[in-house]
Amino acid sequence: MKVSIVGVTGYSGLELLRYLRQHPLVEVVSIHSHSMNKKSIDEVYPHLQQLITLPLEKIDPEEIMKKSDLVFFATPSGISKELAKSFVEAEFPVIDLSGDFRLKELGAYETWYGSSAAPMHLIQKFDYGLAEYREVPHSKWITNPGCYATAAELSLAPLLKEGKLSLDSIVIDAKSGISGAGKGLSQTTHFSETHDNMTLYKMNSHQHIPEIVQQLKKWAPALTAVQFSTSLIPVTRGIFLTAYAKLTQPISDEELVQLYQAHFEHNTFIRVQEVGHYPVLKQVIGSNYCDIGLAYNTQTNMVTIVTVIDNLGKGAAGQAIQNLNIFAGFDERCGLDQLPIYP
Amino acid sequence: MKVSIVGVTGYSGLELLRYLRQHPLVEVVSIHSHSMNKKSIDEVYPHLQQLITLPLEKIDPEEIMKKSDLVFFATPSGISKELAKSFVEAEFPVIDLSGDFRLKELGAYETWYGSSAAPMHLIQKFDYGLAEYREVPHSKWITNPGCYATAAELSLAPLLKEGKLSLDSIVIDAKSGISGAGKGLSQTTHFSETHDNMTLYKMNSHQHIPEIVQQLKKWAPALTAVQFSTSLIPVTRGIFLTAYAKLTQPISDEELVQLYQAHFEHNTFIRVQEVGHYPVLKQVIGSNYCDIGLAYNTQTNMVTIVTVIDNLGKGAAGQAIQNLNIFAGFDERCGLDQLPIYP
Amino acid sequence: MKVSIVGVTGYSGLELLRYLRQHPLVEVVSIHSHSMNKKSIDEVYPHLQQLITLPLEKIDPEEIMKKSDLVFFATPSGISKELAKSFVEAEFPVIDLSGDFRLKELGAYETWYGSSAAPMHLIQKFDYGLAEYREVPHSKWITNPGCYATAAELSLAPLLKEGKLSLDSIVIDAKSGISGAGKGLSQTTHFSETHDNMTLYKMNSHQHIPEIVQQLKKWAPALTAVQFSTSLIPVTRGIFLTAYAKLTQPISDEELVQLYQAHFEHNTFIRVQEVGHYPVLKQVIGSNYCDIGLAYNTQTNMVTIVTVIDNLGKGAAGQAIQNLNIFAGFDERCGLDQLPIYP
Amino acid sequence: MKVSIVGVTGYSGLELLRYLRQHPLVEVVSIHSHSMNKKSIDEVYPHLQQLITLPLEKIDPEEIMKKSDLVFFATPSGISKELAKSFVEAEFPVIDLSGDFRLKELGAYETWYGSSAAPMHLIQKFDYGLAEYREVPHSKWITNPGCYATAAELSLAPLLKEGKLSLDSIVIDAKSGISGAGKGLSQTTHFSETHDNMTLYKMNSHQHIPEIVQQLKKWAPALTAVQFSTSLIPVTRGIFLTAYAKLTQPISDEELVQLYQAHFEHNTFIRVQEVGHYPVLKQVIGSNYCDIGLAYNTQTNMVTIVTVIDNLGKGAAGQAIQNLNIFAGFDERCGLDQLPIYP
Repeated sequence: MKVSIVGVTGYSGLELLRYLRQHPLVEVVSIHSHSMNKKSIDEVYPHLQQLITLPLEKIDPEEIMKKSDLVFFATPSGISKELAKSFVEAEFPVIDLSGDFRLKELGAYETWYGSSAAPMHLIQKFDYGLAEYREVPHSKWITNPGCYATAAELSLAPLLKEGKLSLDSIVIDAKSGISGAGKGLSQTTHFSETHDNMTLYKMNSHQHIPEIVQQLKKWAPALTAVQFSTSLIPVTRGIFLTAYAKLTQPISDEELVQLYQAHFEHNTFIRVQEVGHYPVLKQVIGSNYCDIGLAYNTQTNMVTIVTVIDNLGKGAAGQAIQNLNIFAGFDERCGLDQLPIYP
Repeated sequence: MKVSIVGVTGYSGLELLRYLRQHPLVEVVSIHSHSMNKKSIDEVYPHLQQLITLPLEKIDPEEIMKKSDLVFFATPSGISKELAKSFVEAEFPVIDLSGDFRLKELGAYETWYGSSAAPMHLIQKFDYGLAEYREVPHSKWITNPGCYATAAELSLAPLLKEGKLSLDSIVIDAKSGISGAGKGLSQTTHFSETHDNMTLYKMNSHQHIPEIVQQLKKWAPALTAVQFSTSLIPVTRGIFLTAYAKLTQPISDEELVQLYQAHFEHNTFIRVQEVGHYPVLKQVIGSNYCDIGLAYNTQTNMVTIVTVIDNLGKGAAGQAIQNLNIFAGFDERCGLDQLPIYP
Repeated sequence: MKVSIVGVTGYSGLELLRYLRQHPLVEVVSIHSHSMNKKSIDEVYPHLQQLITLPLEKIDPEEIMKKSDLVFFATPSGISKELAKSFVEAEFPVIDLSGDFRLKELGAYETWYGSSAAPMHLIQKFDYGLAEYREVPHSKWITNPGCYATAAELSLAPLLKEGKLSLDSIVIDAKSGISGAGKGLSQTTHFSETHDNMTLYKMNSHQHIPEIVQQLKKWAPALTAVQFSTSLIPVTRGIFLTAYAKLTQPISDEELVQLYQAHFEHNTFIRVQEVGHYPVLKQVIGSNYCDIGLAYNTQTNMVTIVTVIDNLGKGAAGQAIQNLNIFAGFDERCGLDQLPIYP
Repeated sequence: MKVSIVGVTGYSGLELLRYLRQHPLVEVVSIHSHSMNKKSIDEVYPHLQQLITLPLEKIDPEEIMKKSDLVFFATPSGISKELAKSFVEAEFPVIDLSGDFRLKELGAYETWYGSSAAPMHLIQKFDYGLAEYREVPHSKWITNPGCYATAAELSLAPLLKEGKLSLDSIVIDAKSGISGAGKGLSQTTHFSETHDNMTLYKMNSHQHIPEIVQQLKKWAPALTAVQFSTSLIPVTRGIFLTAYAKLTQPISDEELVQLYQAHFEHNTFIRVQEVGHYPVLKQVIGSNYCDIGLAYNTQTNMVTIVTVIDNLGKGAAGQAIQNLNIFAGFDERCGLDQLPIYP
């Protein structure tokens, strides 16, 4: 299978390259960038020297569709809503890593992203790519979930689907590494301001909130809102998400862990920790794993769910390749079967 | 006023030295360490060369009481419960930075610290040193609050005292820099394991939980428990604490901020942020400040309170000196009137 | 004494504010910024809330000279060469932290800074502010040395002045924290690129090279060049400089340390380490200290000199205040007598 | 080919596991640890959950030789000198990552490692595993070079072999990430002491000095010593090494780069940077690459060589697998053909 990557010079694009080079059934045939072209990518990224020497090309849908079988958009939000149209109209497969096709409700994109949405008939064509819960697995058009959204939704799915949560009690406190903010320069990503620091940002206004609520509602239609916070911690990669919620009735730690282990039994990339064990961020870095630890507190009747992913792995490029594998009928682990890098 | 420091080679002890050197009315006359003695402290800590050349002495209560007017215990929990007795019996002032005299309920220390408590009549003599809410300001015996407890209690005090919180809805997600774990070597403080990592520890069992509940109950007697989590982030100093709770009735962001600003109007070390502003960790490092940001979410009816302190400042040595100032009748800011170090 | 700070919103400007607030004999009466004005500085820098509430003013030489007794320029290179003229012509004291008045040789500034120099008669009026070796201590116009230059010159002064170095053998390998690159945004100061990374930059072309050679030549006129490298390490503050040179004849470690200790005997901010001890970066952070460790290698006949400073302290604001103290006849330690912040 | 790993729980052992899992021609059949056994390794290292579930076994040479075709020792120095004997006597292949078999001169190990050496006849059997310059490529016994030594030797090889260096002028300033100090707990690897810090250690006494000199002498017999320093920088992985030396005659940057490019033309893991480009540490992390940048300074007649490796890759596990490939006649890249992880 031949694929192209648009937006390859961003961090998710680079990570697509890294994983796909190990993929036995996929070949990257062209790479594209808005800002640069002509140059070979290894002139821009010295870590790729002698390893990937494809030229950076401009974005020409006709050319891409001629060479390739599928295109990844690893562009910031706002780009693919313009570019995807010609691919979709030509019935050409697209996996979009941006937020442009995620929100299915009219007006939601405008409210949370602050600009006009893609045409709704286009948005509706895209299947939400939470890999473990795909609705239209063989859809040609996949909107890959946000990094925070992936961790939040996987954290809560088992308890929500079983109807065990008090729906108005959910609090999600999410922390992200700085690469989540991308390559764009800003004061919040300037080393001297960020190192040794921690910052809560987009208070009650992060664009992943409606995405999370939209998905959780599928499992618990009575849910209307979640309390969700996003902060930056001084690490390059990783999301460390802690979710809290009251239960409709008490549970033991053992039952809780068993419920999750049973739920995710056939999901190779979800690793539920044993009772009394909680994942550390580093244990998933460089991989597509999502590790989950659980505890029930009898005093507060609350469950605490600790979930870690690599924001560039399961939170972006890893899950996108997992979705490619599902689409193409490959083994889900193809190209993703690597050990996390530790320490 | 002459003071002695026991446990000076720990991080809180060093920070006491740093602040007290600027204190116009206090002189450190002796410093004491379990593990080392005879040596001048600047042989052990090169940053003190030519600045503090006091010898490290063994801990002899009689000698300390002869030289000094007050003693700080900056020792790990478990030490002062043995050593404080002779000072208290001699009616000699003590400020204890450990957890040994904080829990006033019979059996609580045993449950949460896992060893036998100090005698209860001794514990009862110690006033809880949350500086902004002291009950016996001129008590000779002060038990300085825990770092997490300080941040948690200051976060919630105004809303709790006003009866505005739904008491069973409180969730506190606290993150600490690694110096909070002290100088003791362990795998969780080993650089290669900790750098680029984040870890949730002591799930539902941190010893600051009963301390927080004990204090919050004074303001809201019907409160029985709080959901409280502690994690380590890869910074040396600082606590970043996010508290969430449902309100008994809606509030605007403006009212919320005004309530806190009015409440802390006379508390020089509490800086409530303007509407829409949230503190970053670094803005208090090296200081005794506690900065608080606030938001109300109409969708979830929850308030989010973001609180930052330097765990070695307001969370330990800074507050201990503030308590000394209160005890001695000095201006609260003496020795503490320094700018945070930024960046 | 009343002073003004131009360029206060940069890191060196902020550090001037931090030190000067502790200075018993100096008052900051006005602060100035190119990019911002009108606002109170604590609206821009939340760590200053309630501590420094001066308004940010535009730069008007007449106004400054009316209010103030001395002006600090903490601006990037290229600004003060334009602005200083009116102050100098009015015989008004200036301490310039930029590189604009350091290079005394015709054409040197153009070669190394890549733009036109200030008029040479102006440059000649400025005394080079290496505080321990001032030539015109009471000069009204002081050009504060570069951060790398300060560390390099103090490292080599004793051996050079004693004629003990083989002049063509000097190698200086300097490492700097990222704040040395200032507040300006760039890919090399972007957290995700810088964290966990190390970079050598400006190979053989750093603008401190001619400054160092110019000063070393005063002590050893036969010297013509030094091999000097600059790299960035992932810390916010600090310069860690390692200098190597062959000796004209062997020496023992004890003699070497004694030579330095004798040389710096009256220099309160230079702390020569004992034989076998080498300074770590952190032991000077937040202070004006320069700590030096020394070793002689009998196998290579080379001396290794390890020198650490805070680039914003002794490398910028700290030394500028030391120079102010010298100029004004104050005790050199005024405003600078603080403990390094550790850990 | 079946292999066993002794010392698998250390960082180099873990990295052997990570690379070998991708190796198409090698299977890890048993893993061994001094300190732990019986447990499955993924209970100790959660990042390995469901990926590597081999049990940790005690070290029994007979058992290992029965199961396996080759054994890696990834143990600290001092272990393999005892354990290797029975393997060597049985003519069983060994790749030792420690320093126990590197120093071929009588007495050298005792001097630099401070304990008694392995028997000299055993030491002599081990071929020095600098992969690009193996003397006995098919030797059954390979002593893998030290991490610093690898970077230092590769830096200097081309110029030394061509006789272009002034032999008494070599200065090597090497910086290492903290994982180089291993998993053992110590104050120098304690996060609060190490973060934001830099330390020069083992001044003129690092055990890689004699190893480097021994190898450089093979290329330039008149060489007697090098000036070599080792420091720790606050990153987990990586060695950033800067070497300086005078040339016997001037050279242009272009000639210099061409000399290195020609020299390493057939060495897939050495990537010489173009003129004016210098490698950053991060561009090799997670890989077996060694990237080298070069500059000549006409003013000092010195060359500067900047070399970066991953201390756990080319500096340990990566090179060990490269040596295995050479020994077994596999393609050198087997198991090592991965992109560096960036950012």
